Parts: sequence; C-alpha cells; structure tokens
Amino acid sequence: VAIAPSDLLVMDLAADAKGKPRRVVIQLMPPPFSQGWIGNIRKLAASKFWDGTSVNRVQDNYVVQWGDATEKKVLLEGLAVVPESDYSRVLLDDVTPGFFSALEPGNTKSGIRDVPVVVDKDAYANNGLSYIFNGWPLASNGTQYWPVHCYGMVGVGRDLSPNTGTGAELYTVIGHAPRHLDRNIALVGRVIEGMEHLSSLPRGTGALGFYESAEERVPILSVRLGSDASGFPTYEYLSTESESFGKYADARANRRDPFFIQPAGGADICNIPVPVRRKAR
Amino acid sequence: VAIAPSDLLVMDLAADAKGKPRRVVIQLMPPPFSQGWIGNIRKLAASKFWDGTSVNRVQDNYVVQWGDATEKKVLLEGLAVVPESDYSRVLLDDVTPGFFSALEPGNTKSGIRDVPVVVDKDAYANNGLSYIFNGWPLASNGTQYWPVHCYGMVGVGRDLSPNTGTGAELYTVIGHAPRHLDRNIALVGRVIEGMEHLSSLPRGTGALGFYESAEERVPILSVRLGSDASGFPTYEYLSTESESFGKYADARANRRDPFFIQPAGGADICNIPVPVRRKAR
Repeated sequence: VAIAPSDLLVMDLAADAKGKPRRVVIQLMPPPFSQGWIGNIRKLAASKFWDGTSVNRVQDNYVVQWGDATEKKVLLEGLAVVPESDYSRVLLDDVTPGFFSALEPGNTKSGIRDVPVVVDKDAYANNGLSYIFNGWPLASNGTQYWPVHCYGMVGVGRDLSPNTGTGAELYTVIGHAPRHLDRNIALVGRVIEGMEHLSSLPRGTGALGFYESAEERVPILSVRLGSDASGFPTYEYLSTESESFGKYADARANRRDPFFIQPAGGADICNIPVPVRRKAR
Repeated sequence: VAIAPSDLLVMDLAADAKGKPRRVVIQLMPPPFSQGWIGNIRKLAASKFWDGTSVNRVQDNYVVQWGDATEKKVLLEGLAVVPESDYSRVLLDDVTPGFFSALEPGNTKSGIRDVPVVVDKDAYANNGLSYIFNGWPLASNGTQYWPVHCYGMVGVGRDLSPNTGTGAELYTVIGHAPRHLDRNIALVGRVIEGMEHLSSLPRGTGALGFYESAEERVPILSVRLGSDASGFPTYEYLSTESESFGKYADARANRRDPFFIQPAGGADICNIPVPVRRKAR
C-alpha cells in the first residue's frame, strides 16, 4: 500500500560528529485516529515551527522527545484543542463495515489469526484483543479501541490532565513497549526510516532523561511534510489485510529458520511490526 | 537482597569520545539457571579473556553483542559444553518447595498476583504464566520454566543447533523484548548499571547490525568478576517475594500518579523490572 507523501513527516537533524546527515521519516496515522493532533502537526510543519528546535530528552528504555526546549516559541494560532476522549475510539463499525464482527473468537492459528492478524489476551486491554488493521497496531477492550505504544511509535507530549498537548512536542519509543501510556496520551504515527538516529543518541542525565545543558541538545534543522520535501523517496507498507501479512505474522510467532529450535507459538502485538519499504521509482 | 560480588561481571569499555569512562555491570543468574554457561563465564573473566576484545554488533531494537571479533583468540580449555536442554528447567519443586503449587489460579489482583508476582496468559508460554521469582523474570508452560528475554537481559551468542555457545560471545537486549529467543538461547544475567553505554552505541550498518569496519568496534578494556574488582560498589535488589514488591508490581500495572488518567489494569512481565540499587556502605 503506497503511503501518501502528505502522510509523511521528514525531520532532518544536524549532521553527526562525522558530518553524516541524519534524516528521520515518520508516517502519520490515518483516520479515525488522532486527527485533531495530526491536523496541528501539519500546520506546525507548514509554518516551519520545528526548524531550529532540538531533541531535548533521551530516557533509556523509554522515549526520545523533541520540540522547543526554550518554550519561548510562540505557537501558531488556530491549533486545535483536542479532548481526552480522542485517545481512543468507541467500538463501532466505523473503520470498515463488518471488521469488528470479524474479530469474534475462532479461526485462530497459534493464537494469531491470519487476516486480520489478532493477538488474544492483551494484558493492556483487560485481556481483550490486540490486532493489526489498516497498517497499524491496535488494542480493544470490547468497548473501545486505540493505537498502541510499540517501539518507534510517535506520540504527543503533554502536561497534566486535562491538557492533551498540541503536537508541538513529540516523542518516539526507544525501548520495551510502554503500553501503560496507551489511552493516556495521543499517538500520531511511527518512525519508518532513520530510527537509529534517535535511538542511539546519548542518554540525558537529568530527571526523566532531559539533557542538562543546551550543548547536549541535538539541533533540528527542519521538519517538513513529505509533500513539501523535494527529491524525497516514496514508501509503501505490506497490506495488513493481505494473505502475505497473515503468513508473515504467523512466521513471527513461529520462527522456522534454522537458528530456532523452539517456536514460541505466539507473539505480542509489538513483535509483529508492519513491514515498510522505499517504493521503487 | 544483597548481590554477592562474585555474581557480578564488571565490563569497562574504552572511554567515550569525550574521555568519559564507560562501565557496565552485569548480575549473573543464580541456580538453577544456565550454570554451565555461567561457570564458563567465570573462567573466561578470571583468565582475562575479554580484555582487548570489543563490542562488534549493535542492531537497532534488538541486541548489542560483544566478544572476540577476530575469532583468533584461543578459547580456554576446560570450558563446559552445555546441552540445549539447559535452556529451560523441568517444572518441579526444585526452586523452593511449595512455590509452584502457589502459582495455582486465584488470589489475583488486576491480573497480577501479589507474592509471587504473576502475569497470566503469556503469549510466549502457550498462554501459560510469566512470573518474577527469586529476583528474575520467568515463564512457564506448565511443564517447564525458563528465564525470559526482557530489556537488559544478557545472553550467550551461539552458532546453529546443536551448538549452544560457550559464553565467550555475549549480548544484551536493547529494544522491545525479543521473547521468541526464550528457550532458544541461554540467558545468563542482566545489566544492572551502565546500560546506556551499550544501548546508545551507533548502530552497525552490516548484516544483523555488525560493524563493517574494525574502527567502528568499541574496545573492551577489561571484564572482571565483581569479587576480583577492587574498590567496586556493592548492589542489592528488592526482594521479589516481599510485600513491597507486590505493591510495586501492582503500581506498575495501575499507574496512579497524576500523569495517568487511565490505569492499564495489567502489565507484561518485562514492564515490571526488578529494582536494583547500589548498596549504602
């Protein structure tokens, strides 16, 4: 499935110590998720809000966070204030008719259903389901569904409730999936290229992994929507509703290559990352 | 619970680009786990095997691996050849009498039992149990039990089966828990200090994250048992059989600090890391 350039966020960090460029590419989530925050992010990118800001926080086994460290930048007017209720969606057939009825028990294979791929008994969803649909990892408690915090997912930093953040302060997961953040904070996308430029940054030594001095911060040269970046590659992901994806998920749960002597017989939702690649021109 | 200095492995990497020392401290697992490999590791440390070797592989969201990149170092004679059956243990009351019978259903709180802390429905244990006992995260399918691959756990690199590795080649987990490695490879310990010196290393650009040039490798100055290292601090961990640990695990599953608006009601085994600290002298 082709990813529209307008659904990409392209962040260029300052070159590393050896002069090597560092580009991070983020895919924004499609409707019905987090569109209030994502609308803000599109506006912020269009206004070049992040140019000259920095990566300010790197907490080991948790998150890398970026935005305006000085908090002196005036935010764009007209940003949406998004309610907490948008952290999740009410469970209706509002994604694809018939989809959720297709999640009824049965037709499972090693705890993973082929299409859509379902993992049962998610500890973070009241032992409900987690599943991968329309290209994204989701969880459901039977009443609501929501995107989940896997490695590389991108979310919106916020202050205490009822603040939900604007989207000006973003983070990505660089450790074991912090699933306790699900439904507590908005997820807006995932890193699809250049993750190593964030995950390998020096850890901050201040509280919560914030850098203690301005010199430690990693400058952000620019952040642009993919549709506003020239000469930029295009990307595609493996359809999560395809038979191939069902086979891929089954292979993740039951490794059969020669290295493995004991297939696990299952996998958690964050160990079935959706394959994304550059599209051949 | 005090950690015996003889159960610590102290690895000093070459100083970083700014001249800052980089020390990594590993706690070795207690019986009944992996004692064949751990015996080898004690011998290798005593013989200074790792001095002058290097970190050779850094694969994003997976592992950092170290050992003798040249593979020219002659291994010590007298290292044990450990069978694959030692990747797990048969489920008997061989740890603490009465322990496993205490794991019967009931007495659960939000899916997590107080003491010992139990997480139900582990996808990597045929929907069996994962639990934390005697200081370590374990899983059980009702027949066997084994240590699990959480962030920071240390394991033994190996060639294809039936090779199980000697312990000369070690790795640690730097991403989402690769639980599919459970029962396929030996776990021997966990990093308890200095994890950031490994997790923040530049990712290798070769296959599987191996560094492509010798210059990229990170030199290891020395690896010593804690009992052979002078002026070295001592450590202690929170007893996993204590009431405090039960409360801690419950708090991990149901975050109640002001940031959270929606407690998860559960946690996976790798999101309940055992607290370890330096012991006051």
